[in-house]
Parts: sequence; C-alpha cells; structure tokens
Amino acid sequence: MSAEILCIGTELLLGNITNGNARWLAEELAGLGIPHHRQEVVGDNRGRVIAAVREASSRCRLLITTGGLGPTPDDLTTEAIAAAFETPLVEHGAIWADIQAKLSGRGRPCAPSNRKQALLPQGAEVLPNATGTAPGMIWSPCPGFTVLTFPGVPSEMRAMWQATADPWLRQNGLADGLFASRMLRFWGVGESALAEQVADLLASENPTVAPYAGAGEVKLRITARATNLPAAEALLQPVEQELRHRTADACFGSDADSLASVVLALLRQRGQTLAVAESCTGGGIGAALAAVPGASDGFLGGVIAYANTVKQAVLGVPAELLERHGAVSDAVALAMAQGARQLTGATWAIAVTGIAGPGGGTPEKPVGLVHIAIAGPDGSCSEGVRFGALRGRDWIQTLTTGEALNRLRLQLLAT
Amino acid sequence: MSAEILCIGTELLLGNITNGNARWLAEELAGLGIPHHRQEVVGDNRGRVIAAVREASSRCRLLITTGGLGPTPDDLTTEAIAAAFETPLVEHGAIWADIQAKLSGRGRPCAPSNRKQALLPQGAEVLPNATGTAPGMIWSPCPGFTVLTFPGVPSEMRAMWQATADPWLRQNGLADGLFASRMLRFWGVGESALAEQVADLLASENPTVAPYAGAGEVKLRITARATNLPAAEALLQPVEQELRHRTADACFGSDADSLASVVLALLRQRGQTLAVAESCTGGGIGAALAAVPGASDGFLGGVIAYANTVKQAVLGVPAELLERHGAVSDAVALAMAQGARQLTGATWAIAVTGIAGPGGGTPEKPVGLVHIAIAGPDGSCSEGVRFGALRGRDWIQTLTTGEALNRLRLQLLAT
Repeated sequence: MSAEILCIGTELLLGNITNGNARWLAEELAGLGIPHHRQEVVGDNRGRVIAAVREASSRCRLLITTGGLGPTPDDLTTEAIAAAFETPLVEHGAIWADIQAKLSGRGRPCAPSNRKQALLPQGAEVLPNATGTAPGMIWSPCPGFTVLTFPGVPSEMRAMWQATADPWLRQNGLADGLFASRMLRFWGVGESALAEQVADLLASENPTVAPYAGAGEVKLRITARATNLPAAEALLQPVEQELRHRTADACFGSDADSLASVVLALLRQRGQTLAVAESCTGGGIGAALAAVPGASDGFLGGVIAYANTVKQAVLGVPAELLERHGAVSDAVALAMAQGARQLTGATWAIAVTGIAGPGGGTPEKPVGLVHIAIAGPDGSCSEGVRFGALRGRDWIQTLTTGEALNRLRLQLLAT
Repeated sequence: MSAEILCIGTELLLGNITNGNARWLAEELAGLGIPHHRQEVVGDNRGRVIAAVREASSRCRLLITTGGLGPTPDDLTTEAIAAAFETPLVEHGAIWADIQAKLSGRGRPCAPSNRKQALLPQGAEVLPNATGTAPGMIWSPCPGFTVLTFPGVPSEMRAMWQATADPWLRQNGLADGLFASRMLRFWGVGESALAEQVADLLASENPTVAPYAGAGEVKLRITARATNLPAAEALLQPVEQELRHRTADACFGSDADSLASVVLALLRQRGQTLAVAESCTGGGIGAALAAVPGASDGFLGGVIAYANTVKQAVLGVPAELLERHGAVSDAVALAMAQGARQLTGATWAIAVTGIAGPGGGTPEKPVGLVHIAIAGPDGSCSEGVRFGALRGRDWIQTLTTGEALNRLRLQLLAT
C-alpha cells in the first residue's frame, strides 16, 4: 500500500526553489496513514521521467507526481508517463473546452500549445484543476499501481489534492488507518543524552518515538497508527506522558510551541509582562517574542544596548560598573535587566551581554561567553554561560536567545 | 560525471521538515558545474538506504548524502552505506578523541552511543565536522563512484561542504573545468520584472545568468566556466558590469553581502552611526545588523517599542500623536525615529511601526501595512508600505526589515 512522490522540474535540480510540494504531500500522506517510503526529483527530461516512473511502479502502489503539466515544450510529464507504459494519448474534448473557456475568461489567447494539456493516456481519468489550466490525471496503467499527477504550482496542487485526490484515496481503500503524531520540544539537554534517557521508548513500534536535533533545541516525535484518530491518540498519550514525566522541565512544549510562545503563555496566565535588554543578540530575543502572534499581551519591548553608551544613557548602567567589570559581566547584565524593568514597567526583564565574535575575545572572556540576567518581582540573578566559539556568531546569538528565554521559563515555573 | 543527492530521514517522509538541504546542495553543484540529474529521499530504514545507495552507484559518479550520522539507533547512514558494499566498519581513534573533547568542552556527558560516530567503512576518509560531533566521509567503494556523507543539521552540512567537500571536488577533477561565480543581490524589484530587464543575458551560455527568488530579495547568479580561474573571471566581469549598469541601485551587493552589511559598510565609510526604533519587527532590524561581524563600528542599538507605553516613555512619542494618528502612522514612525536618534546620539535612526497580523487589521489599516521612517542629519521622512496579509506574520516582519534597511541604503547613496 506504500506511496512515492516524484517531483519533476529542472528548477529543483538547479536549486532555484525548495521542494515545498514534497513536504506538503508527505504530511497529507502521513495523515491518511499511507506509508510513504521514498521521494524522488528528476528534471524535465523525457528519458529520466520514464525511468523514474517505471522504477516506482515496481516498488509502490501509489505514485504522486508534481510538475511538468504546463503547455511549454519542457512540460512532458503526461507524455512520459504514457510512454512508460506504452499507451497512446487521447484528447479529452471536455478538458480542451475547459482550457479554452478559462483562457478566454482571463483575456488570454489560446495557443496551440495549450491543446496538449487536453491529452491523457488512454484509460486515465481527469483529476480536475479548478483554478489553473493544467488538469492532472488518475491512472492505473497496470494492476496494483496508480499514478496521480499534479501541476507544480503549490496552490493548484493543494486545491486539487483536497477536492479530488484525498476523497478518491479514502473511497478506494488506499488510506490505511490513521496517524496521530506529537512533536515534544526540549531545551538544555543534548540529543544523545536525551536518547539514552528514553532508549527503551525509541525501540517501540507503535507508537514510534524518534529524536531530532535542531539549533540548541532537541525534539522527540511520537507517531501512533490506528484505525481511527481517537484510537491513535489513545496509543500516543501514555507515551507522551511517560516522556514528559522522565524529562521533566527539559520538555518545554510540543508541536507549534516555541520557547518564546511558551514564555508568553506563562506570562499571560499570570497577567505579567516582559521587557528585554539586549547587547550581543542585538534584538534577537525581542524578534523571537514578536514572531509569536498576539505577543503584545505580554511583551512590552525593551532596549537594544549594543554600544556601551546606550547601556549607560538609556538603561542607566553606571559607567563605573562598565569600567570595573567590563560590559560582559554579571554586574552589567544585572544593571541592564534592572534598567529595562524600570524603564518599561515590565514585571520581568531579560538582559544579555556577551562576546559573539569572531573578534573581541580574550583568554578570560573568550568568544562565546555570555552573561544572562533576569530581573523580576522578587529580585535579580545573573550567570555567565560559555557557548564556545566553534560554531560562530550566528550560533552564539541563537543559543543566547534560547537560553535566556529558557531561564525565564524555568523561573516562571518555579514561582 | 553526474551527481545525485540522497537525503535520509523519516522526518522528511512524514513531512515534518522541508528539504532545504537538497536545494542548497543543488545550488552548490550547479556552481561547480557538476551535472545533477536526480534527488532521492528515504527514511531511517537500513534496507531502503542500502537499496537507494546501490541504485545510485549504478547511475552516477558522485553521491551526496545528508542525515543519519547522529548517535541514536535510527542514525544508520554510515552502517548502511558500508553494508551496501559489504565493507566492514573500523573505528577511527582520532574521531573518537575529537568527539570526547567536543562533548566535554560543552560540559556534556560522553555517552557510549557517541562512539558509533567514530566508525567509518574501511578505506573511507574522514570529512571533518568542525562544529558538531558527527563527521562525514569521503569514500570510493568501487571505481568511478564516490560517496560524500553529511549530517542533516544544515549549518554543519554547509560548513563541511565549504571547508572540505568543495575544495576536494575541485582538486579531484569532479568539477568540470573551473567556475567563477558571482551572486548579485537585489532589493525592491520582482523576479519576473528583473528577468525581463535582463532577458537577453539569461539566454547566454558562458557565462550563464540565472535568477533566484528569496524572501523579498531577488538574486542573479553569474557563472563562467574556463580552464583557469583568471579566464573565468575575465568572462564573468563584463556581464556583471552590464547587469549592475542596467539595474542601477536595485543591486545592493554580491555574494556574502546582506542589506545590513552593506548599510554598515556605507556608515563606516562616512564615520557615521545608526540606531533603530522597532515596533512590529520587535528587534529584527537590530538582530540583522548585529548578525554582521564588526557591527559595533556603526550600530549603537536602539529601542524595541512594541507597546505604546514604551513608545511614549522611552522614545518620547507624544500620547496625543498616538491617539490622533494611531500607532501605525507616519507621524508616530517619525517621532519614533527622531526619539531614537536623540536618545542614542546616532547619526541616523530607522523606525518601523506596522500591523504584522494575523489580528489587528482594519479596512483602513490592514494587516501588512507598515510605516517606515528614517531620521538623519538633514531631517526625517516616513512612508507607509503595504506588504499584504497573504504570506503571514513572518513574511511581513522579514520584508519590513529588508525594506527599512534598503531605504536607509538608498538615502546614504544619495547623500
């Protein structure tokens, strides 16, 4: 019952565009419980499309193609699929009438090249395209193998999938069970340490548990399969509970959560507000908070105190502290946090000051050293963290943003 | 001489993530002049990885894989590739020492599972990973076929490509001829408008010119091929000059330039400084500036005035302006820019205030409307821009950041 996705387009092979269609279709197949074991990309090349289609037909039950349905000479998907099974093309009068109506409705001339879009292999059904001129097809050229073709334009492909392909797959018994899936998100623990903590669950078959590493963040995906969604959810939930129990506070959220969205939700529950004072991140913590819809409930803003003059003039950091301890110090981080809290009237303030590199490091204060302070209703605290210089400026700034938000999260959870 | 890309990861088949690695690698291969006819994706499944690798070895000269190099049980790329060619794995003492040093340097425990990352098939060379614990390999298991493996983490994969794989491919004659390439970067012009403006050059064969669309930014890649680098550069330069001449100020830079780095360079030439006052971007403009090494020469910092109270209390925007014109208006943007300039003593200040959505829009002030002001030594100006609501909050914030920096760039060029 397995499916493959074949995306056709030289622009994908040149790296001109990212293959978002494959991701979207993969998610749809997972939601339908159709096992999906392989994706391929080939260019607008007749021989290679024929070869890829033939190979897929020997491996899978269902092949989804995107791209190559347009009117230009390099659009050759339909013709190549027909050739792969030595089947002649026939013109569909209804498609040709529809193409003519759509083009004249847009005031566009109807070129002879458009007529080839009305050709389908003998025996294929039309997969209608309500918005564009390129229809797809549903065709079973041999027993136990069906190919569905879609244009490469994402909006047309998605609309055609939802209107025709999805119901067709359900009605024809190709959707096998249903999947429920949850992505748990972690901060402050490495991928291998987390994997060992839950090693027994990584071996489980249904639900499956799989780890993923990101920039500082680590994730575990739980996927359960059953005949219906409530049954899949019921399989998933005890594993999610066990994972959350074992990993405690290291799990900050699930699915679409981010550290920023979780911090904002905790603040919202308490009716509290947050300000930032950023040096080495230059606004990255604020931008992460502002990326969350509805951030204005809890996020007030703050100060980007990149230069020491701004630390002094706007946040009121005493010149004497900067001289004695240096800008990258607990004393200055604390004064920045307290200054931002006072200036904005926020319940909480996060301050970061560090050396993002590549220049500016010294043996005592190397690149990657960042001091992170949090000021709140019950006082302030600050700590130095060493992210190391290896992964560069961008990495240090990203980890600083995550670590600062995570520290506030842990403090909110503890109070 | 052709190459294939094989991306390994169940998360790609489940549609959890978009395959950005394939696009990036495809662009690199194109830049090296290595023909690339096929991409594949398979899951973390030993049998299917083995099958995909064997099939690729019968079709292509060079296979690039990503993913599956981590320490967890579902990371099985190295093992499966070795098995595809019935070759035993051997431990590399130097890799294991490097992994231990990296983990202890980060204060992380060294788990037994990490040790499998030190195993490579007999005869394979290490493809070093300077930043992560998972090295890749360069291996020719049979004549006329070489496989290069990379981790799935994009930053590690890219750094390894640039440090080792790219020079290796050039030195070993897999790059066919020598290529000089230049990426010209544009802001404020659409991909199709730009393509029409330079249509004759897009048809050129050597150098080739190819357009790429990004988030607001449009790029033209010029690639010249010759037997040596000076000859390739000599072919490239007249086309670059012609493109720059035709597109004038819309071309803001090339290669590693960003709008932020170009603005900072213009300020550095003038010995001038910049501050920001950000509402709807929440710090994104500051973060873009701080992403540039050495930003402290010209970037002083500024104010994240997300809440109106911060616009008033910190930037001194009069309450009366906010009431009369609303926060999203030229009057408030101007007052924000002037406030930031005064507060920080910067030569220039950029201010943005807008509706990033999804909520908060009205018929007069829809989601996507942003007012951008610039205050400088000769006065201030502000203008409203409509980015539209269709592509969402993140898109609006990204375009606002680029547009604001571009406006300052044009003003600096004009004065």
